[in-house]
Amino acid sequence: MIQTEKADSDIIVSDNNNMEIRTIDECLIVYKTQKSAEKLNDEEVLMLVKSNHIKPYMLEKCVNNPERGVGLRRKVIAEESNLTEALIKLPYTGYDYSKVLGTNCENVIGYVAVPVGIAGPLLVDDVFYQVPMATTEGCLVASTNRGCRALTSCGGVITRVVDDGMTRGPVVRFSSVTTASEAKLWMDNPDNFKIIKSAFDSTSRFARLTKLLVRIAGRHLFIRFTAFTGDAMGMNMLSKGTEESLKIIGGFFPDMEILSLSGNFCSDKKPAAVNWIEGRGKYVVSEAIVPSKIVTDVLKTTVASLVDVNISKNLMGSAIAGSIGGNNAHAANIVTAIYIATGQDPAQNVASSNCMTLMEAFGDDLYVSCTMPSVEIGTVGGGTALPGQSACLEMLGVRGPHSQTPGDNAKRLARILCATVLAGELSLMSALTAGHLVQSHMAHNRSSAPRNAIQNVESKSCK
Amino acid sequence: MIQTEKADSDIIVSDNNNMEIRTIDECLIVYKTQKSAEKLNDEEVLMLVKSNHIKPYMLEKCVNNPERGVGLRRKVIAEESNLTEALIKLPYTGYDYSKVLGTNCENVIGYVAVPVGIAGPLLVDDVFYQVPMATTEGCLVASTNRGCRALTSCGGVITRVVDDGMTRGPVVRFSSVTTASEAKLWMDNPDNFKIIKSAFDSTSRFARLTKLLVRIAGRHLFIRFTAFTGDAMGMNMLSKGTEESLKIIGGFFPDMEILSLSGNFCSDKKPAAVNWIEGRGKYVVSEAIVPSKIVTDVLKTTVASLVDVNISKNLMGSAIAGSIGGNNAHAANIVTAIYIATGQDPAQNVASSNCMTLMEAFGDDLYVSCTMPSVEIGTVGGGTALPGQSACLEMLGVRGPHSQTPGDNAKRLARILCATVLAGELSLMSALTAGHLVQSHMAHNRSSAPRNAIQNVESKSCK
Ligand SMILES: NC(=O)c1ccc[n+]([C@@H]2O[C@H](COP(=O)([O-])OP(=O)(O)OC[C@H]3O[C@@H](n4cnc5c(N)ncnc54)[C@H](OP(=O)(O)O)[C@@H]3O)[C@@H](O)[C@H]2O)c1
Ligand SMILES: NC(=O)c1ccc[n+]([C@@H]2O[C@H](COP(=O)([O-])OP(=O)(O)OC[C@H]3O[C@@H](n4cnc5c(N)ncnc54)[C@H](OP(=O)(O)O)[C@@H]3O)[C@@H](O)[C@H]2O)c1
Repeated sequence: MIQTEKADSDIIVSDNNNMEIRTIDECLIVYKTQKSAEKLNDEEVLMLVKSNHIKPYMLEKCVNNPERGVGLRRKVIAEESNLTEALIKLPYTGYDYSKVLGTNCENVIGYVAVPVGIAGPLLVDDVFYQVPMATTEGCLVASTNRGCRALTSCGGVITRVVDDGMTRGPVVRFSSVTTASEAKLWMDNPDNFKIIKSAFDSTSRFARLTKLLVRIAGRHLFIRFTAFTGDAMGMNMLSKGTEESLKIIGGFFPDMEILSLSGNFCSDKKPAAVNWIEGRGKYVVSEAIVPSKIVTDVLKTTVASLVDVNISKNLMGSAIAGSIGGNNAHAANIVTAIYIATGQDPAQNVASSNCMTLMEAFGDDLYVSCTMPSVEIGTVGGGTALPGQSACLEMLGVRGPHSQTPGDNAKRLARILCATVLAGELSLMSALTAGHLVQSHMAHNRSSAPRNAIQNVESKSCK
Repeated sequence: MIQTEKADSDIIVSDNNNMEIRTIDECLIVYKTQKSAEKLNDEEVLMLVKSNHIKPYMLEKCVNNPERGVGLRRKVIAEESNLTEALIKLPYTGYDYSKVLGTNCENVIGYVAVPVGIAGPLLVDDVFYQVPMATTEGCLVASTNRGCRALTSCGGVITRVVDDGMTRGPVVRFSSVTTASEAKLWMDNPDNFKIIKSAFDSTSRFARLTKLLVRIAGRHLFIRFTAFTGDAMGMNMLSKGTEESLKIIGGFFPDMEILSLSGNFCSDKKPAAVNWIEGRGKYVVSEAIVPSKIVTDVLKTTVASLVDVNISKNLMGSAIAGSIGGNNAHAANIVTAIYIATGQDPAQNVASSNCMTLMEAFGDDLYVSCTMPSVEIGTVGGGTALPGQSACLEMLGVRGPHSQTPGDNAKRLARILCATVLAGELSLMSALTAGHLVQSHMAHNRSSAPRNAIQNVESKSCK
């Protein structure tokens, strides 16, 4: 292709994607003059990427068009790594990437779709909910739905949030046990707590420090900051407030060295007794009384069997397995499905699905409860503002910040979650008790399953 | 609207969505004669749903068109629960629901899109990978990508799978400690293991029983079945094989009562020491040696600081928090993001993200390793066949069953995962050591963050 001489203005003006490709130098003139690659065609932009003038992670910004940027990055990756065929199958068009950029994900090449099923109506504290669950585990929605049906028909689930505080636990080090223990005593003093709190609270309109738990290990201190975080799950808020607090504490203890803003005493996304005992996020409980007739008719088992199996599996079995926080059948399934649907951080299901499921005979009926001490959840921040995710929050009436009382939306979501976990527990425990687990999964959770078996999916229920 | 008399054949033939709505009786004739509601228009189908002639969960099958079925279910839910506005914002068109139906989800009303970012190239065992991560946590991909850059520039990551077996742990009960302990001894005998194994292995072309771990609690036995499951994560396979094995064992011990096919000694989706100690799924390790120059230039910290912070946070901090399996910074983040991208069961990140991250000075350089004993992962089954998810598996060269050696694709995926966790650990630990955590999250993980800050996302890295 012969390049003809062009005036700078000629070069810049063009944005025709079908035109002749300009030289690198011509493209650079456009890019630098306009401080944007918007007017370059795709091949020209890719040329600038290859020649290291545009960083691949900057593409959205450079072409001032998120979807075009994503498309260009796919071309770069496809070519560099020989992935053209695979990438064609990964969807990317028609998605509002402006909401993702700078908030939720970098180096974006598209998205995966996770199917959303609906379980409900579930009656929670006298309100009916249709609960969206994003999952690829066949049987899960059908089974949870069966639990909802049983619970709604018997007056629903009662829930309470009994504690509410997100945590961050930095590790700091002193020159000796002497100053470390002095600092611990200083932080334990309520007057000094006020000083720390005022530093912490200054970092946010909503985050409010409520507690410090200080543990010593030789000359190290692990300080667990707990704060109310309104409708946000609060991890970023806690980090910000904790950093500011440590500055203040450091002023009083010059030999204090901040080793890490997170010292794993938080504990975020790791199994840990501290969350189970002290709580993290929302500490939430739910209960219901299920008449024996519903246990027989809907759940296909008996009160006595459920109580028996619950003790053997969720109390004894979890103890034998050396579990801390895992006294349940599959709370993580419901937590993860609701988390993905509503834009929570699904990596947090590690602690958020801590749950103790209890069942007792209550006269002829069944008393069942779920206790979840560490539900890390929010209705602002994270993925909650993404298109589909915010629609799911809206379905539950808890989208965004609460209009009157900050924190009330997040709490309500935690309560709905805990009630849905109860529905899931009830249904799976019944399926296990009745010996239906394998039957249902073979019919509804196998790629090769016959397609005509959908009729029985609810009654067979699953896991 | 005046209904005129029509012949049955007239009624049936019509499939015009704009035509007059027929009466319930007319619609029922069509539905029953054709054994399908395909020829009814939407309003007519909804009429049959309202009059309880069609169950909402059967819609896809009844109209013989998955997307139309999903659309109709949305109408039912929207109307019944007053959710029209919210549902409009939940995407549902253009998705291949035939892959979902009967395998991955029930009561489907649409899908949520999770953005996929790319981290790489990452050199793992001498092969370059571009790793897809589905996440809504801003900074995560950028940070992991920085880790990949550091690792790839220094020769990459070495990985090994040292053990491979999925587990299911039923609880059974005997009349007394006498028969319970007899049964335990019987199962511990290698000859009897062969009998159990032959029952187990008969249930699958791929699943092969390798081990039994029997624990006694009074007159209860908890039997942990371990089996190789080829390229499948294997949970359904284990359930099926275990059920068959218990039948055989029951033949020898007539007073054995099966309480639950899962007695939480598996342990699936619950935190538990047994998985950390005995392993579950793939037991995988990864390592790298990072020259001090790369630690300084790319990771902006020093070898000594990294080693120091790793001991304080990942060893001491996790011990103080009472953690079993959580000796890491944020393995769960990488696990969850890769799990969602590749169609794994993300509720399993509870155990799959168990990880011990170790760092040592190695001369002037850094020796770093990640040990993950319970990676529950597969390349067939679950969500692995869904369109976007299978594209992500294809990007990694591990889509579907391995063509020669069943199990090799799943193992390779586990190794890539463990190497990417190492990249994530390295980058976050560096950010924490350098005190960059808050700065980066404020810029790249807040809904209100200024959009022009993307330049520094890598160097500031995050968690
Ligand atoms: N940093 C980490 O170590 C870490 C760990 C795990 C997860 N994460 C990620 O952190 C993100 C969530 O952090 P975050 O929950 O702190 O969210 P965030 O989006 O960082 O912070 C919440 C923002 O919403 C504002 N806000 C408005 N109305 C509010 C209300 N009613 N209640 C509370 N806040 C309100 C807050 O105002 P103010 O500015 O006045 O506070 C703040 O700016 C997720 O993406 C998650 O994946 C980070
Ligand atoms: N049931 C539960 O308690 C439970 C618990 C957690 C998760 N899950 C769910 O279970 C599902 C996964 O179960 P799964 O992993 O057992 O998958 P699956 O899809 O139920 O079973 C794998 C199927 O693939 C076939 N297959 C073909 N090539 C294979 C190869 N190379 N290696 C292995 N199998 C091959 C197997 O053949 P054969 O028929 O010859 O074996 C089998 O039919 C997920 O949806 C997960 O969410 C279930």
